[in-house]
Amino acid sequence: MRIGILTSGGDCPGLNAVLRGFCKYCFNKIKDVEILGFLEGYAGLMNREYKQLTPADVENILDVGGTILGTSRQPYKLMTVKEGDAPTKLQMMVDNYKKLKLDVLVTLGGAGTHKTASLLSVEGCNVIGLPKTIDNDIYGTDVTFGFHTAVSIAADALKRIRTTADSHRRVFFVEVMGNKVGWLTLYAGVAAGADAILIPEIPYDEDKLAAFIAEKMKQRRSVVIAVAEGAMSVKEAAMSKKERRDYLVQAGGSPVTDRLASAMSAKTPFQCRSTILGHIQRGGEPCAFDKLLSTEIGAFGAHLAQVGRYGVTVCVRNNRLGFNILTDIAGRTKRVPSDGQLVLLCKDTGIYFGD
Amino acid sequence: MRIGILTSGGDCPGLNAVLRGFCKYCFNKIKDVEILGFLEGYAGLMNREYKQLTPADVENILDVGGTILGTSRQPYKLMTVKEGDAPTKLQMMVDNYKKLKLDVLVTLGGAGTHKTASLLSVEGCNVIGLPKTIDNDIYGTDVTFGFHTAVSIAADALKRIRTTADSHRRVFFVEVMGNKVGWLTLYAGVAAGADAILIPEIPYDEDKLAAFIAEKMKQRRSVVIAVAEGAMSVKEAAMSKKERRDYLVQAGGSPVTDRLASAMSAKTPFQCRSTILGHIQRGGEPCAFDKLLSTEIGAFGAHLAQVGRYGVTVCVRNNRLGFNILTDIAGRTKRVPSDGQLVLLCKDTGIYFGD
Amino acid sequence: MRIGILTSGGDCPGLNAVLRGFCKYCFNKIKDVEILGFLEGYAGLMNREYKQLTPADVENILDVGGTILGTSRQPYKLMTVKEGDAPTKLQMMVDNYKKLKLDVLVTLGGAGTHKTASLLSVEGCNVIGLPKTIDNDIYGTDVTFGFHTAVSIAADALKRIRTTADSHRRVFFVEVMGNKVGWLTLYAGVAAGADAILIPEIPYDEDKLAAFIAEKMKQRRSVVIAVAEGAMSVKEAAMSKKERRDYLVQAGGSPVTDRLASAMSAKTPFQCRSTILGHIQRGGEPCAFDKLLSTEIGAFGAHLAQVGRYGVTVCVRNNRLGFNILTDIAGRTKRVPSDGQLVLLCKDTGIYFGD
Amino acid sequence: MRIGILTSGGDCPGLNAVLRGFCKYCFNKIKDVEILGFLEGYAGLMNREYKQLTPADVENILDVGGTILGTSRQPYKLMTVKEGDAPTKLQMMVDNYKKLKLDVLVTLGGAGTHKTASLLSVEGCNVIGLPKTIDNDIYGTDVTFGFHTAVSIAADALKRIRTTADSHRRVFFVEVMGNKVGWLTLYAGVAAGADAILIPEIPYDEDKLAAFIAEKMKQRRSVVIAVAEGAMSVKEAAMSKKERRDYLVQAGGSPVTDRLASAMSAKTPFQCRSTILGHIQRGGEPCAFDKLLSTEIGAFGAHLAQVGRYGVTVCVRNNRLGFNILTDIAGRTKRVPSDGQLVLLCKDTGIYFGD
Repeated sequence: MRIGILTSGGDCPGLNAVLRGFCKYCFNKIKDVEILGFLEGYAGLMNREYKQLTPADVENILDVGGTILGTSRQPYKLMTVKEGDAPTKLQMMVDNYKKLKLDVLVTLGGAGTHKTASLLSVEGCNVIGLPKTIDNDIYGTDVTFGFHTAVSIAADALKRIRTTADSHRRVFFVEVMGNKVGWLTLYAGVAAGADAILIPEIPYDEDKLAAFIAEKMKQRRSVVIAVAEGAMSVKEAAMSKKERRDYLVQAGGSPVTDRLASAMSAKTPFQCRSTILGHIQRGGEPCAFDKLLSTEIGAFGAHLAQVGRYGVTVCVRNNRLGFNILTDIAGRTKRVPSDGQLVLLCKDTGIYFGD
Repeated sequence: MRIGILTSGGDCPGLNAVLRGFCKYCFNKIKDVEILGFLEGYAGLMNREYKQLTPADVENILDVGGTILGTSRQPYKLMTVKEGDAPTKLQMMVDNYKKLKLDVLVTLGGAGTHKTASLLSVEGCNVIGLPKTIDNDIYGTDVTFGFHTAVSIAADALKRIRTTADSHRRVFFVEVMGNKVGWLTLYAGVAAGADAILIPEIPYDEDKLAAFIAEKMKQRRSVVIAVAEGAMSVKEAAMSKKERRDYLVQAGGSPVTDRLASAMSAKTPFQCRSTILGHIQRGGEPCAFDKLLSTEIGAFGAHLAQVGRYGVTVCVRNNRLGFNILTDIAGRTKRVPSDGQLVLLCKDTGIYFGD
Repeated sequence: MRIGILTSGGDCPGLNAVLRGFCKYCFNKIKDVEILGFLEGYAGLMNREYKQLTPADVENILDVGGTILGTSRQPYKLMTVKEGDAPTKLQMMVDNYKKLKLDVLVTLGGAGTHKTASLLSVEGCNVIGLPKTIDNDIYGTDVTFGFHTAVSIAADALKRIRTTADSHRRVFFVEVMGNKVGWLTLYAGVAAGADAILIPEIPYDEDKLAAFIAEKMKQRRSVVIAVAEGAMSVKEAAMSKKERRDYLVQAGGSPVTDRLASAMSAKTPFQCRSTILGHIQRGGEPCAFDKLLSTEIGAFGAHLAQVGRYGVTVCVRNNRLGFNILTDIAGRTKRVPSDGQLVLLCKDTGIYFGD
Repeated sequence: MRIGILTSGGDCPGLNAVLRGFCKYCFNKIKDVEILGFLEGYAGLMNREYKQLTPADVENILDVGGTILGTSRQPYKLMTVKEGDAPTKLQMMVDNYKKLKLDVLVTLGGAGTHKTASLLSVEGCNVIGLPKTIDNDIYGTDVTFGFHTAVSIAADALKRIRTTADSHRRVFFVEVMGNKVGWLTLYAGVAAGADAILIPEIPYDEDKLAAFIAEKMKQRRSVVIAVAEGAMSVKEAAMSKKERRDYLVQAGGSPVTDRLASAMSAKTPFQCRSTILGHIQRGGEPCAFDKLLSTEIGAFGAHLAQVGRYGVTVCVRNNRLGFNILTDIAGRTKRVPSDGQLVLLCKDTGIYFGD
C-alpha cells in the first residue's frame, strides 16, 4: 500500500504528533506500506517533492512543534486557475497522484486544505482529511487538535496581563486569534477569568461596553477583555463586506483592540491599553490533551486508509472518532452559537459579551 | 434562597474554580441568595461550622489550587453507625440542614461524597452533587474537572523520565494514580509516548511483558511504562480480594512498580527502575481546560439550584452539561473499556497493554 | 519601629514576593514593628493612603503576580515642579513622612523610583531602595528580581515562534522589551537559540544583516531574530536624539521589527514576519529563581532597616547581597558591554549581533 | 584539531545544550576541527565507540533533555583495578586517547567524572572538564548547569503539594534530591515557601521540630517541609558512618521523609504525610537560565580547547566563566555553609532549619 501524506496551511501544535500516530499505525498494522511525506504542503505534491518516511523519522516527534514535512499556503481559489496551456495546480497534483501510484492521499489541514482535498476527491483521488486548526471552526467535528494548546497559551498570557492590569488599575484589551470565529477567544477568556469577551459572532455596542467597564471598575481594580481579531461593533456588523473594508481603512487599519482602547479611553475615565498576543498562539509543543488527541486522530486516519474509507475527513463527535464526507463539510464553518449553553452560562456568571 | 456548599474527599485541581463559578452565578442571577460554605467537608455540616461567602471571597480563586473551604474524608460507611444514644453523623447533618433552613446543599466530591449525598437526598434534603475526581471514574459523566490537570502533570513527569531513561538505556516503571481505574494512566501514558500502559482493567502477563521489553529495546534506547497504582497481573486478577491482599502482604507490601522493576530485572538483561509520581498529581493550579470546565460546572450547578432540580449530580455528556439522578449513579464506577476505541487505537500504534 | 513601604513604576514579577520576604523578616525579628503599605506607589505617600500590613496579608503572596499595594508611574521630573503656592510632590511626601513618624521608607522600584528615592534621602528621609526591573539595567547590581522571569517568558515565546518559522521557511523578527538596554533580549535570545540578536548597545547594519540571513537560510529552514524595542541601525545610532525622533516619525512610527521585516523582505527573497511580545513579559507569577531572589532581597532590605543603614539600595554583587549608596547609583544605567564575555562567546557560537 | 567529548554520570538538564554550544564554537572558530562524541560516557572511550559530530547533529538539541551521546556510571574506584593481565579501565582509555590521536578530551560530568578526568590528566591526556550536576556541589564554581532546572521542578512540585496540605490541614515531608548536600532542597524550599528545610549540613532535632510544627499549625492550615534525601538528625550526625548505616538498616531502610512523618505523627496531633519527588528532578528540558548557562559553558570549554588550556575544569565565579585546575578540585565538595548569608536570612524570615 502506498500512502501520500502532507501538512498544509498555517502552523498548528500537534501536526507532528498526528504524523507520528498515523505512521505508527501504518508501520504496525499495514503490510508492505510505503509512506511518502510530501514537502511544503500541496507544493510537494505539485512538484513531486517528498521523502519516504521511516519509523525512526517519527519516533521522537510527539513533543516537537511545527511539522517535519514543512507547510505552505496554497489558496484554494488558485487551484483551478488556467494560465495559457500550462496545467492547473489541481491537474498537476492529480497527475502526480497517478504517476506515484498512490493508493490514498492524507491531508492535514484546515478549512482551505479541506476545500482543495475535496477537489482532489472529486477528480478521483482517494483522499482522507485530518482536521487541523487552532480556530476550532471546522464543521462537523466537536474539536480539532491544536485548539486546546492555543487556549492554554492564550489563557496563560491573559492571566499574566491581569496582574499588570491590577497593579496599575487599568482596562486591558487583549487580541486573541480568530478572524471569523470566536472559539479560541471564548475558551481562553473564560479560562483566564476575563471580565468581558468580544467575538465575531456577538457584535458589541460601544456604549454598553463603556457602561459595563465603568460598573466593573467599581468592584475591582482592573478589567481584562479578551477580544477576537475579528470582533466587530453592531454598526460594523450591519455593514456589507465592502462597506466594512472601507470603514476599517478609514480607521487607519488599526487592530480592533487599538480601536477599542481609544474609544474606551474617550468614553470612560480609565487608563485603557491594548496588546496583541500574535504568533505565539499557533506554534510550539502541544499540550497533553492535544498530544493524546493528535495520536488518536493520526491512528484513526491510518485505520480509514487501511479499510479504504476515502473521500472523508476525520471528526470527533460525542467523544468518539468518526468521519464526515469531505464534500459535505468543505466550505462550511462552525461558529460559536450566541445562544449556546456555554455562552449563556458565562453570561450568567457575569461575563460580558458586548451585546 | 439559602444554599449550603461544601468540598469533600481528596484534593483536586479546580475545586476553587467551581466554587467561584457557582457563587458568581448565584450572586448574579438569584435574588436574596445566601451561600454558606461549610468548612472541612461534611464535618462542617455535622458541626455547623461555616462561613458566609461573599463575592470578594471568590473573585480571585480561579487559579488557586486546593479549596478555600477545606476538606476532609468522611467514610461513607461510618455515616450511619450508631454509638449508644448519640445521633449518627447522617442524623447530625440532616438536623443541621433543617436548623440552618437550607434550601439546598451542594456537594463537590467524588464517588464517596456522592454516596453520602445520596443518603442525604433519601433523608429528604435537597442535594446537588458536583462531580470531582482526578480519576475520571464517576459514572454517567464523560469527564470530571481535575482530570485533565492530572493528565497534564503526569504526562509532563513521564516525559522528563523518558530523557533519563534514554540517557542511561533503562526501562522505567512509573506509577500513576489510579487504584481501581486506569483513565489517568491511559491518558497520561499516551500523551507522553509511553511504550506500554498497565491499568487495572487489563491485567498483564509478566512473560509477555518481558518479551515486549526485549523486543522494544532492540528498536530504541529506553522503555517507559506508565503503571496505574492498581495494575495487576493476570495471576492476581484471578484471585479473590482476600487472596490478593495476602499475596501483596507476602510481597512485602511494595508498590506494583517496584515489583515489576525487580521481576523485569530478573527476566530481561536491562537496568529496570521504578518511580512513583505521588501527590504532585492531585494538587495545584488547574490547567486551562479545567478552569473552563470548572467554571461551567459551577455555574450549571447554580442553575439547577435556582430552578429547584434536586437529587441530582451534574454531568457532561456529549459536550453538554446535564444531570443524573444521584441514586442512579451513587456506588457505580466508570472503568476503562478494554475494547474501547481509544485502547484499540493505541494498541494499533504499538503501545503495549500487558495482555 | 515604624516602616513605610511602597511599590512604584511598572509591574514586575516578584514585587509581592519581596513584600512578603520583607514583612516576614520584620514581624519575626523586629520588636514592635509597624509596617505601613502605601497604596499606588508614591501617590499613596503623597496622599497618605496606606494600609497597615499584617502577617496574614503577606502569607500567601509568594506566587502572586503584581503588587498587593498597587503601583503608579510618578515621573521623577515632576517631583519638584512648583505650581503656584502648592507644595511640590516631593514636599508633600517629606511632610507625610514626618507626620506619620516613619523611621524609614522602603521603595521597590526601578531607575525612576530610585531617582525619587534619592531626592527623599537628600531631604532627610531615611530611605532604602529595593531594585526592581525586568530590564536588569540598574547600576551597581548584578541582577534584579523579575529579570529572569521575563527571560523565561520571552525565551518560551521565541521557541514557539521558531516552530512556526521552521514550518513555513520564514524569517521572524521578534520584539522583546528593552528600550535602552538589551539584557532581556540578549538572555532570552541565547536561551531560545535565536540566530541573531539586535540590541541598542550594538547597532546593526542592514546590508550585513541581509547577507547573514541569506547565508543562514542556506543552512536551515528559518531565521529567528530577537530584537530589543530600542535596537537601532548604525545610521540611527549616528543621529542626535532629535534627528532620530524625526527619522522615526517619518518612518511612520512603526516598531523596529516591522521596519526590519519590510527592509529584509526587500533585500532578501524570503518571507519575513514580525511580532511583538508585549505586555506578557512583565506580569504574572515569578519563576523559581525570582521567588528565591525576591525573598532574599526583601529580607535583606528589612535587615538594613533594622540596623539603620539608610540612604542605600540593595544590590547583588558576586552572589552576595549588599548595598550601594543611593546618590551614587541614581541616574546611572547598566548597559550590555558590547565586548563582554557573554556577547563575545555568543558571537563565537555563530549568533549574529548585526554589526 | 581532533577533540573527543563525552557525557558521564547521571542525567542532568542541559547536557545537550552544552554539547551544542561546544560544537557550534568549534565548527565556527577552529579550523579543520573533528569532534568525536564517545558513546555512553567513559565506556565509549574504553571501547572506542563514538560518532563524529556534525553541525546538523547539534542544531536542534538546545531544548532536548538527556544526552544524544548516552551516559553511564563508571565508578572512579574501579578505574585502576587490575584483574590479571588485563589492562585497567584507565589504561584502556589512555591507550585509545593515543590511538585516536586526540588533541584533547572534554568530559561533561559531576564529581565522580572529574575524579576520573583528573586521573587521565595525570596520565598525560589533555583534559577539560565541564561541571554538570543538579546538586550544585562541585567545588570551585558558583553554579552548575542543571541546578536551576531542578530547583524549578522541585519548587513547582512543592507548590502543588502545599495546596493539598492546605486543603486537608496536613503536615507534609517532601523528599528532594541531595544525599550529601542541601543546595537543591534549600533553593527549592525557599522558592516554594516551605515552612522548614532540612538538609545534611544542618542536623535536625526531633523535639524542636515537633515544637515548631505545633506552633506553626496555630498560624496556618498546613506545614510543608522540604527534606533533602541525606538529611539527618543530631543523633545520626553524631554517629560514625558505620553506626549510621546500621541504624538506618534497623529503621527498615525507609527514606528520611517516611521516618520523619511517623515520628511527627507520634509527637504531634497532626496528620503527617511524606512523598518523594524522585527522578522527575533530573531529566527533561532545561529552564531558560540553564539553556543560556549551558551554551556559555560549552562555548567557553571550546575556547579553552582552542587555546590549549588543559588539565582544567570550567567554572563560574562572580558571574564570569573561568577555570580551575582539575587536580585542585577533584574530590572536594561544596556544601551549604550553615552560617552563610542565605541560610541566615531565611532563618530570619521564619523558615526553620531543624536546629
